Amino acid sequence: MTDNSHRGRPVMLGQNQYGKAENRVVKITRDGATHHIKDLNVSVALSGDMEEVHYSGSNANVLPTDTTKNTVYAFAKEYGIESAEQFGIHLARHFVTSQEPIKTARIRIEEYAWERIETSDANSRFIGADDVKHSFVRKGQETRVTQITYDGSSWEVISGLKDLVVMNSTNSEFWGYVKDKYTTLPEAYDRILATQVSGRWRFNWTGDEQKMPNWEKSYDQVRKHMLQAFAETYSLSLQQTLYQMGSRIIENRSEIDEVRFSLPNKHHFLVDLKPFGLENDNEVYFAADRPYGLIEATILREGCEPHIPVDLTNL
Amino acid sequence: MTDNSHRGRPVMLGQNQYGKAENRVVKITRDGATHHIKDLNVSVALSGDMEEVHYSGSNANVLPTDTTKNTVYAFAKEYGIESAEQFGIHLARHFVTSQEPIKTARIRIEEYAWERIETSDANSRFIGADDVKHSFVRKGQETRVTQITYDGSSWEVISGLKDLVVMNSTNSEFWGYVKDKYTTLPEAYDRILATQVSGRWRFNWTGDEQKMPNWEKSYDQVRKHMLQAFAETYSLSLQQTLYQMGSRIIENRSEIDEVRFSLPNKHHFLVDLKPFGLENDNEVYFAADRPYGLIEATILREGCEPHIPVDLTNL
Amino acid sequence: MTDNSHRGRPVMLGQNQYGKAENRVVKITRDGATHHIKDLNVSVALSGDMEEVHYSGSNANVLPTDTTKNTVYAFAKEYGIESAEQFGIHLARHFVTSQEPIKTARIRIEEYAWERIETSDANSRFIGADDVKHSFVRKGQETRVTQITYDGSSWEVISGLKDLVVMNSTNSEFWGYVKDKYTTLPEAYDRILATQVSGRWRFNWTGDEQKMPNWEKSYDQVRKHMLQAFAETYSLSLQQTLYQMGSRIIENRSEIDEVRFSLPNKHHFLVDLKPFGLENDNEVYFAADRPYGLIEATILREGCEPHIPVDLTNL
Amino acid sequence: MTDNSHRGRPVMLGQNQYGKAENRVVKITRDGATHHIKDLNVSVALSGDMEEVHYSGSNANVLPTDTTKNTVYAFAKEYGIESAEQFGIHLARHFVTSQEPIKTARIRIEEYAWERIETSDANSRFIGADDVKHSFVRKGQETRVTQITYDGSSWEVISGLKDLVVMNSTNSEFWGYVKDKYTTLPEAYDRILATQVSGRWRFNWTGDEQKMPNWEKSYDQVRKHMLQAFAETYSLSLQQTLYQMGSRIIENRSEIDEVRFSLPNKHHFLVDLKPFGLENDNEVYFAADRPYGLIEATILREGCEPHIPVDLTNL
Repeated sequence: MTDNSHRGRPVMLGQNQYGKAENRVVKITRDGATHHIKDLNVSVALSGDMEEVHYSGSNANVLPTDTTKNTVYAFAKEYGIESAEQFGIHLARHFVTSQEPIKTARIRIEEYAWERIETSDANSRFIGADDVKHSFVRKGQETRVTQITYDGSSWEVISGLKDLVVMNSTNSEFWGYVKDKYTTLPEAYDRILATQVSGRWRFNWTGDEQKMPNWEKSYDQVRKHMLQAFAETYSLSLQQTLYQMGSRIIENRSEIDEVRFSLPNKHHFLVDLKPFGLENDNEVYFAADRPYGLIEATILREGCEPHIPVDLTNL
Repeated sequence: MTDNSHRGRPVMLGQNQYGKAENRVVKITRDGATHHIKDLNVSVALSGDMEEVHYSGSNANVLPTDTTKNTVYAFAKEYGIESAEQFGIHLARHFVTSQEPIKTARIRIEEYAWERIETSDANSRFIGADDVKHSFVRKGQETRVTQITYDGSSWEVISGLKDLVVMNSTNSEFWGYVKDKYTTLPEAYDRILATQVSGRWRFNWTGDEQKMPNWEKSYDQVRKHMLQAFAETYSLSLQQTLYQMGSRIIENRSEIDEVRFSLPNKHHFLVDLKPFGLENDNEVYFAADRPYGLIEATILREGCEPHIPVDLTNL
Repeated sequence: MTDNSHRGRPVMLGQNQYGKAENRVVKITRDGATHHIKDLNVSVALSGDMEEVHYSGSNANVLPTDTTKNTVYAFAKEYGIESAEQFGIHLARHFVTSQEPIKTARIRIEEYAWERIETSDANSRFIGADDVKHSFVRKGQETRVTQITYDGSSWEVISGLKDLVVMNSTNSEFWGYVKDKYTTLPEAYDRILATQVSGRWRFNWTGDEQKMPNWEKSYDQVRKHMLQAFAETYSLSLQQTLYQMGSRIIENRSEIDEVRFSLPNKHHFLVDLKPFGLENDNEVYFAADRPYGLIEATILREGCEPHIPVDLTNL
Repeated sequence: MTDNSHRGRPVMLGQNQYGKAENRVVKITRDGATHHIKDLNVSVALSGDMEEVHYSGSNANVLPTDTTKNTVYAFAKEYGIESAEQFGIHLARHFVTSQEPIKTARIRIEEYAWERIETSDANSRFIGADDVKHSFVRKGQETRVTQITYDGSSWEVISGLKDLVVMNSTNSEFWGYVKDKYTTLPEAYDRILATQVSGRWRFNWTGDEQKMPNWEKSYDQVRKHMLQAFAETYSLSLQQTLYQMGSRIIENRSEIDEVRFSLPNKHHFLVDLKPFGLENDNEVYFAADRPYGLIEATILREGCEPHIPVDLTNL
């Protein structure tokens, strides 16, 4: 924070950052006839000695956001995109080390997964003898995310995902809660539990001297443990399920010290079919949009400090 | 259309319809410990002798939209949901045959696919000896759609999908086009071809006396042929690819007489890296949002009449 | 429709069209220090002799979609943007008359309204003596739309709006409807009536020899009459309100022969506060998202044929 | 944070909160024939002694999210909705003071503005002699927001808005910036400056013993000063404009100590019309979607500490 009272202004500048957001970069790697694809949405945020551009409009310390965009595309060529995390590390290091006024760089990346389109032998006549290795269908499902922050000495990497929708059609209860004068909810002993997972996990890799995690393998393993915990927990509350999802990650992945989830309770209400002479034996549900329960929590490895901001999982 | 000039009004009522839209119904079928899920969004549109409700507000011929909603949920119990198409047929038939003023029913359904969450033996201790068969993750990817229309004597079933994003990273060219005074586009001999498929296909099943198609198998096969045609076509224009996608369906699926696609050309522009001393050998692309090319066409079995409305694929 | 059976294919090409969609053009007109703004989203769809590009990929008849985009921007300079309708007419005429293979052009335009930011005398020291006439805030509220179609001889202009949300907090009832075995809805004698208006109206201007309507004035007047009809109708059904809205336009605007509305019934449910010892005297409502009633109808001037497609109001 | 190592788990629970999100409440106040409307989207987040529900699933300390929803609707009746802020204060106080395990309540509210539909004398025959005072059209434009946090002793109120789109068609430059090897942007001496304002401001009202601000008047005044600062600043950078917007609020509104803005630079690129033999004299622009510059900063009253989280303006 900068005190500019000497300028005769009773107003101070606080935290500030700038950069180009949502640079959509697609990188094709051609391994002979077999192509590989990385599909990213990269956002750059830089901060440092930026008082003057706010006070007087002087851009003398400002690397244009257009330049940060160009750098994203140039680096995709120069370094390739091994993983979103590795790509973000290249970018963050560059901005902080190459521009004196820039003290901190934060790179956020969304990644969209693709899978190959299966082709048939019967149709190979259309294209010659070889299989098609350049055709893809977007996987849909979750969006993978990461945030890399670098201040010139240490790294913070927070990865995660959003929009992964999961459901247990049984093994969920909700009862034994507080009842006040505004409580009308009946207790439930067999309900649907569904949520749209937004999760972030922080790596304990912070310095260039440490061995870097295998970002791709880590993501796959975290996702697997998280889904298994969701599936295998007999749930008495969504909070309990959330805690199991986070614990399973901390227990199984030594590279991760902190996890935060934001889990909307996507309500599925059992429809009352009695007026029509029908019994609804946990078969027919109304999937509601709003309102929804919203359960959020941080799970930490013992002895670690929390760093994932409360609101990050809601972005 | 109804001429109400005898009422002293110079204004006539034309096509009209009403009903409850976007009824979100989730149906769980329990086959012992193995659960199955159908997740639909059902919209009902009814039309018939509805002049008075427009002219005077008399609801004497109006089955409330709330009732059409109730019917959706009740039918999920009474008939189950074998397929979106079969479910829509039950609903359409009911409205037309049970209410004298209702002459036509149109049911539109979106279906969201789910797949099972894989669990691990190692974690089976959490849940006993059995595998989890009640846990699902939403598949993402395309939304399956269908529209069933019934007028009391014949059926029209138009099924399809939307939001299926596909890409060929090579085997696409674009050249030899018209050049006028506003043309600046350079010809391309190796470009990315990407689109977000919205497609609809019309079945030739129209009467109860005909054998009904296997809706689930038909969908899977149409989707497969469509994707293979996209992958296997060496494309000189997106129109050519579209035509191949439609032809492959018509040629392989005898139950379908008409296909319509709306294919946005999701442009991926090769980034000019020369200012940075780099060569971009079809590696680094900017994925643009707007504007986009939009290619739309109907493909028909020889001798058939088109019935899919021009705009239906853009809903 | 084109029969290509002579090509040995059992598949025909039906309706087809192509062009660049969603060209975002902002035009600033500087009248001295006073600026004016037009903010459009223009989509071009061309059709004509386009068989070969579908069959063989030959682009010999294809004006690139990139060229149609360039034309939009060039025409904004050459002709200015007097109104969305007038601009679309320039574009449609150009494509059909300048390219022999193009037989029909359809231009769709969305327009976003802006209003001036009011400035204060007290702050005029910041900018000199003159008022600010170059600062705008986007109006929000509805999006104005138009669709111009030209086939080389006659014009069809369908204008309208979408996303205009309106509410009557009383003077709405709903009772006297059909009751079947699935009906549970209680009758209502004082309810909220709210909808998000999507409307389209067709002009009877079809030929260059006719006097062209004043598009801007027509829009303002139609919007005014429509809103007044919504406000002033004591409603026994949303259909009745819809009919009044359409009739008022037909009766007051001689340039318009046909109107179509798609009106979602945005339900506001009276919350049951009795469990909390409170009476809800039409005060506290839950605004629901889905499902919603959906009421759609065409209103026509006597003796006119309907041309607005059923689905156009849902795009 | 809770250390549960005594439970034999190497995992700790960190910040956690829960509640019902997005409760849509519409409150009609009838002042004779004149109706008033408040239209809110209320989200409740509670935290406190919630370890057990995460560890064991015991809900003994959990007031159900359904109850928090009921409380929102009941309070709309019991207290009315004078302003979003006042309503949130009632709710937050209630949860913290009525439930011992709940230590902190955070209420977030979005508010949608409505304006009256003007009616005409000529049409008054439809409704009798009186003007219509129960018909509204949603204003569109910005969404007003507020966040109230209460921990049993002190209050934090952060209000703001989002989605307010503004544009200056001149009086904006950008030059004199850093140039590195990735810089290609030409300097601009007359450009469009457009942004979609997301802003939050924190009140210095923190205790019940202090005089409460007039929330409605404060909002109107802050919005006015902010818009005027945007319009009246001759801008050399968006950062400078942002700082002026924040400073103007701090200088003019003594009830506010801190402001944070997130301002996307919505690029409007001058279209190159030279290939068509046309000159573009700052007239025709392409409005781009992505990427966009993103400028974010906090502005503080001298001597005050920042409390608005960095990411709050991006929610």
